[in-house]
Parts: sequence; C-alpha cells; structure tokens
Amino acid sequence: MTLREKAINKIITQEMIKLSKIEKRNPEELRKKIAEGKIAVPRNRKRKTKICGIGEGLRTKVNANIGTSPLASNLKIEIKKLETAIRAGTDTIMDLSCGGNVDKIRKELISRCPIPFGTVPIYQAAQETTKKGKKITEIPVELFFEVIEKQAEDGVDFMTIHCGVTRHVLEKLASKKRITGIVSRGGAIMASWMKQNKKENPFFENYDRLLKITKKYDLTLSLGDGLRPGCLADATDPGQIEELKTLGKLCKKAWSEGIQVIIEGPGHVPIDQIKKNVELEKKYTNGAPFYCLGPLVTDIAPGYDHITSAIGAALAASYGVDFICYVTPAEHLKLPSINDVKEGVIASRIAGHAADIAKRVPFALEWDKKMARARKNLSWKDQMRLAIDPEKAKLLHSLSQGTNGEECSMCGEFCAMKVKI
Amino acid sequence: MTLREKAINKIITQEMIKLSKIEKRNPEELRKKIAEGKIAVPRNRKRKTKICGIGEGLRTKVNANIGTSPLASNLKIEIKKLETAIRAGTDTIMDLSCGGNVDKIRKELISRCPIPFGTVPIYQAAQETTKKGKKITEIPVELFFEVIEKQAEDGVDFMTIHCGVTRHVLEKLASKKRITGIVSRGGAIMASWMKQNKKENPFFENYDRLLKITKKYDLTLSLGDGLRPGCLADATDPGQIEELKTLGKLCKKAWSEGIQVIIEGPGHVPIDQIKKNVELEKKYTNGAPFYCLGPLVTDIAPGYDHITSAIGAALAASYGVDFICYVTPAEHLKLPSINDVKEGVIASRIAGHAADIAKRVPFALEWDKKMARARKNLSWKDQMRLAIDPEKAKLLHSLSQGTNGEECSMCGEFCAMKVKI
Repeated sequence: MTLREKAINKIITQEMIKLSKIEKRNPEELRKKIAEGKIAVPRNRKRKTKICGIGEGLRTKVNANIGTSPLASNLKIEIKKLETAIRAGTDTIMDLSCGGNVDKIRKELISRCPIPFGTVPIYQAAQETTKKGKKITEIPVELFFEVIEKQAEDGVDFMTIHCGVTRHVLEKLASKKRITGIVSRGGAIMASWMKQNKKENPFFENYDRLLKITKKYDLTLSLGDGLRPGCLADATDPGQIEELKTLGKLCKKAWSEGIQVIIEGPGHVPIDQIKKNVELEKKYTNGAPFYCLGPLVTDIAPGYDHITSAIGAALAASYGVDFICYVTPAEHLKLPSINDVKEGVIASRIAGHAADIAKRVPFALEWDKKMARARKNLSWKDQMRLAIDPEKAKLLHSLSQGTNGEECSMCGEFCAMKVKI
Repeated sequence: MTLREKAINKIITQEMIKLSKIEKRNPEELRKKIAEGKIAVPRNRKRKTKICGIGEGLRTKVNANIGTSPLASNLKIEIKKLETAIRAGTDTIMDLSCGGNVDKIRKELISRCPIPFGTVPIYQAAQETTKKGKKITEIPVELFFEVIEKQAEDGVDFMTIHCGVTRHVLEKLASKKRITGIVSRGGAIMASWMKQNKKENPFFENYDRLLKITKKYDLTLSLGDGLRPGCLADATDPGQIEELKTLGKLCKKAWSEGIQVIIEGPGHVPIDQIKKNVELEKKYTNGAPFYCLGPLVTDIAPGYDHITSAIGAALAASYGVDFICYVTPAEHLKLPSINDVKEGVIASRIAGHAADIAKRVPFALEWDKKMARARKNLSWKDQMRLAIDPEKAKLLHSLSQGTNGEECSMCGEFCAMKVKI
C-alpha cells in the first residue's frame, strides 16, 4: 500500500507519528488530511528521507532548486549548493540538472541528501536527446517514461511532470496574447514537442502509465504548471487557469490511485491577484498542497528576485500556499552561485515564517517572542542564537564599531532598550 | 501663505504644476488633495528642493535614514551614504545624526541634497545635553525649540516630532504589558523626560509654539510614532492606537493652521494586522499621508531586515501607505554601512513599485511590461537598462559562464524564451 492508501484505510503509520511530533499536531488529524489529499509527505519507497509534511495547517515548507545547465556544469559546485541549501534550512531539494553527466550528478546529490529530493525528468529526456544531435521535438515517448523510472529507481521522492499542457489548454493559451509566452522550461519543451509532432501531451495521454510508475515507488507527483505567467501582464490569464483546472482533474485521478499530489503554481503575479490565485488553486484541486515559485510581484528587479519573490511568497503563503520554491538573486541572469542558493533559501524561509504567523501555525510566533525578549535584554548571545542566519547576524554585528558590549553602533547611548523610563 | 493655504485658497502653484507633470495627474486634482491634507509636498521656504508629493494616488515614496551615532561618527561616510541613497533612487533623506558635530554634519549634507531633507530635532537636543555631562531627562524645554528653529533655518524640509507621546497615551501603553516597551529613540527620550520631570510632553503642551515655527518655514510636520511596536507581539496594542488617535487630533490642528502633515507608523506588525493598521491610520487622521517604517513582518531575521520590511512595506503600501521609510540589512545590529544604505533603498523601492501596481498608480505597470518585452526578445541591453539596479544586474549577468550572448547560464539551449513553439 502507498502512504495515501494507508491513510485512507485509517492506518496511522510511523511517518504520521513522526510528522505529528515535528508539527505538534495530532496524528489522527494528519492521517485524515493525508487521506483527503490536503497534506503530502514526499518519500520514495527506495530511500529513507527525513519526514517532511507539506499542506494545510503545517509549517510552510521551502524548496531549493539546484543542478547543472548545459552552460554551467560542475558537480563539486552542485554538491556545495546542496550542502549550503540544507545548512540554510531548506526543507526539500530539487535537482534540475540538464548539463553534464546527469545520472552521475543525481546519484551523487541524492546520496548526500537527507531531505526529500525532487526532479523534473523531462529535462534529462531533453538533454539525452540533444546530446545525440537531435532536437527536443524528437524526444521519443518511450524515453520520457524510461527517465522517470530510472530516476525513481535512484530514490527520487517527488517529480514535477508537466501533464497539464494539453492541446485544449494550449488553445486556451492562444486565446489571449501573452508578452512572454511560455516561460516554464518543461512547459516550453512539451508545447514545442506537441506542436511539431501534432500529438497530445504524452504524459496526459499515457497518464495511467505515469501513475503506475509513481505508485510502484510511492512517489509524490508534483503536477507542473507549464503555463505559469512569466511577467505580471500575463498573470491569471485563460491559459494559466485552464491548465490549473486540468491539473485539478489529474490530481483527482492520481488520488483515486492512492498517489500523493502537489500542484505547482506561479510565477509572476501582481500583489492584488495573489489571493485569487490561491483561492482558485484550492477550489479547482479540492485543497491539494499548493507549491508556488514566488510569486514575483514585479518584473523590474533582476538581481533582487529573492526579494520580489519573498514578498509574493509571504503573501501567498499567508493565504494558503503550503510550499515555496525559492528564487535566488541570480534569477533571470545566470545559474545561481553557492551564495545565491543561501540567499534564496533564507529569503524564502523568512517569507514562510512570516506567513506562518499570519496563518496561525502553532508556535510560529514563539520564535519571534524569544527574539523580542533577547532584544529587550540586550542579550546579543541570544539574539545571534535565535537569528534565522546566525552567521550573517554575527558578521554584521561584529562590524558595530566601538560598542561596549551592550548597545550597538546604531544608537549608542541613546539605545531605546537602555533608556530608563 | 503656506503651500497648504494656497491650495485651500484654490491657487495652483508652480509646485503643483511640477508635481502634476511628474505624477501624470491633473494639477487641480493635486491642489484639492493638498487642501484636504491627503497629499503633502515637503519643502522649506528657505531652500529649493526637488518637488516630491507624498500621498493618496501618487507613486509610493521612499525615505533613506542616514546620519551619525555617538559610536560611529564620520562625515565623509555620511556624505557617501547620502550620494549612494540618491543614486539608488530614494525620494527623500532623513539625517538622524546624534554623534559628532551635528550642526556641521547637517549643513554639509543638506548642501549636497537636491531632494527633501528631514530630521528628528529631539536627537540633537539630547546629544547637546549629554555632551555637557547631563542626562537626557535634563534637556531644557527651551533647547527643544531652539534646535527646531536652528534646523529649520538650515533648510530642513520636514521634521519628525514625537508630539503624541502624552501622559494619557503613556497610561494607555501601561495598560498592556509589552515585551520590548518603547523602541522609538525619540519616543523613549520623551517618555523618560516626562516621567522624570513629572511633566507633560513639551511638544504637546506647547504645540502652538511648534506650529508657529513650522509655519514660518512652511515645514511639513511628520508626527512621530513614539510608541510604535518593537516586536510582533506588541503590535496594534492600546498604547500604539491611542497615540495614533492623538496624532489624528494634532494633525487636524496643524491643518487648521495651514501646515502640511505626515503621520508616522509602525514598526513590527504581523502580515494579518497590516491592513487594519493602514485602515486605522486613514480613519483617525482623515486620510493624512501615512509614513511607515517597514513594517517588519517577523522579528527573527537580523541581517535581512531589508527583506522582512520589504514584505511588510509592499503589503502596507498596497493597502494605502504612501511613504516607506527604508530598513537596511544592518537594522538591529549596527549603524548601516554605505552598501547597507543601497540595499535598503532598493528593497524599499521594489516594495513601493510592487504596491503601486496593485493600487493602480498610473503607468506603474508599464515599466514591468517593458522589462517583459526585453526578456522575451532576449535583449540584455534593454534588460540591464530597465533594471531597478542596472549595476547589480550587469555584475550578476557578467558572471553567466559561457553564454553565446543570447541565453544565460540558467537554462542554456533549453531557454524557454528560445524554444520554438
């Protein structure tokens, strides 16, 4: 039985008990939500991974994307990124490698990864095809499924598959002109493949085959949003919404086969459309966990997209997004560096935690109260210990000139915490 | 006549015409809003400054705080901070100096500042008193007003005065225990002074005298929030709200004397209380421009408070905050460095712009549309030109390894913008 099937059959598993301790929730409540599909716990049968629950009522989780590209492929750097992301507190890792020896990179990374590990198998199918001098439109259908099986065998815990980019959905997309078109790498590959081959999306057409593999390894299916908007002006348009509706139907089918599902979401969304986006996802997918890439709330800040996305993610998560895919300062400019990875994880964790306070995740505010007390007591040791990034807080505070160990160089003797009232 | 009196008397001034061109609004509409107090245009009669409108319907403005502290006082560095903040696109500057030769520092900074320049005169009164070996509770009432007059004479355009920390307000504050007490430097100085001297707030008690000086120079009065919360747990409490109500009454009185007013606001506020805070300010002050410090949406991220505050500021401004006081990565740790100043301005400008799109400031979205088109066209030149910080965008993109000048190292040949669909 899969974890979902056990939950449906009212079996409280070790995973649920572990999760109940981590999240300070009742195991039966968690079981019920896993059975309803509102919580997913990604892990492959083949591999032991740290228990991580994603969904309603739980702490908002953060994912860090790492991996090579055709133009920048260095295994050592990717291992460093993995380690950095984990040290910075990411909850999951996705390896998006599509450059170099992708099999080797994945195996190396997964062997070092104690937390849930995800992939986007289309990328490897595309890379294996183009390496042979062929076009992405020539990816054989068989290869798509071979790659999925191969990656599952390696222990991948969750996979993003762009099943919702169907012919019907692409027609809807064409009904309103976009500025940036399709910006999801997976979505663009699928749309190009379908158009050139005049065929339906192979994952949609062979969805039962996909579910069979998924079930065999008890993978969690992350239904990709191939048509997520790539700029504010394209947000919440007919293509995006039609794909979301399609993902809702595919989600239901996966659930009926005992498979856990996560739904991917945008992207670039203006602040005043974020609430609507979250409501639509919860409505069309019956409350499946929502996994957002940001959203970025403006397009004009390359170099600062960890900030533009932290704004959107904090707001989205406060409305019910369960899982934040980080965005790094390198977004739109280059493959992230090791330091970009750290900045991305921390910004997303800040967004998630701020949202957790707003959505009343149990004990979320306690952390802030402890920090507030440490500040009032001018206890720098406690402030550093409680900081989301003690290393950075210590570095900056060490540059506080001429302090006597109490007030910092901001206010000196006029420190409001010291003024006797 | 003051600018406000002219507006009330239906006179359309050069300032209003300039502002109408900058904001792409009708001059008569601006005149009406200045007369209603919903827009303020800070400038001292003594000085020419770039026209900057703050208030309803206008682009959200950003302020950068610079200035020395008793532990870190270097005029050259402060001049660099001024130049850096202006280059990064701040709309106004506040000099919070309270270390070194404050008069000299202010004169030097103001002579180099083409944009509205603000101060918090209490700081200088405190510094001049403690320099003589006296306590802040021994600041003579006369000195408070002398400093205000002296700074006004130098051409300061707007001043934050903590008039709302009254005995009655402090009683309300005491009705609910806070973790961090009073965290505003000015608020703490006033409360301490009042308690030790068993006297009412001298700015409240001698408000007419304050208004007389303000009017003489046609200064804009920024009514300080001495009781802003210093942590999430203290947000929106009776002390904070009572002070806001008091500021509303003081605002009305200043308006009746023909003086422009801005209301200061929090601070540290959970995401789910931000909307309420903006609504209360607009209600109790009859729509006076709202000037927020952040708000920071979590307390646990020292080193990243430009991000915690950008999240809060974006949300607050989308609900109607008109003016964002920046917060730098150094907040809670040290006096900001030159680079911290830049990071703070850019983060606040991102927040303000994202909010402007949500609150439908005319043409705000156009910038994003241009960037989106530049991305679709893979025009790096245009992307760099349109970036909020071209310098940083260029630096990061220059590290994109092995690009052929088209796609970046993120996706290489799999760039979604290039895939033919």
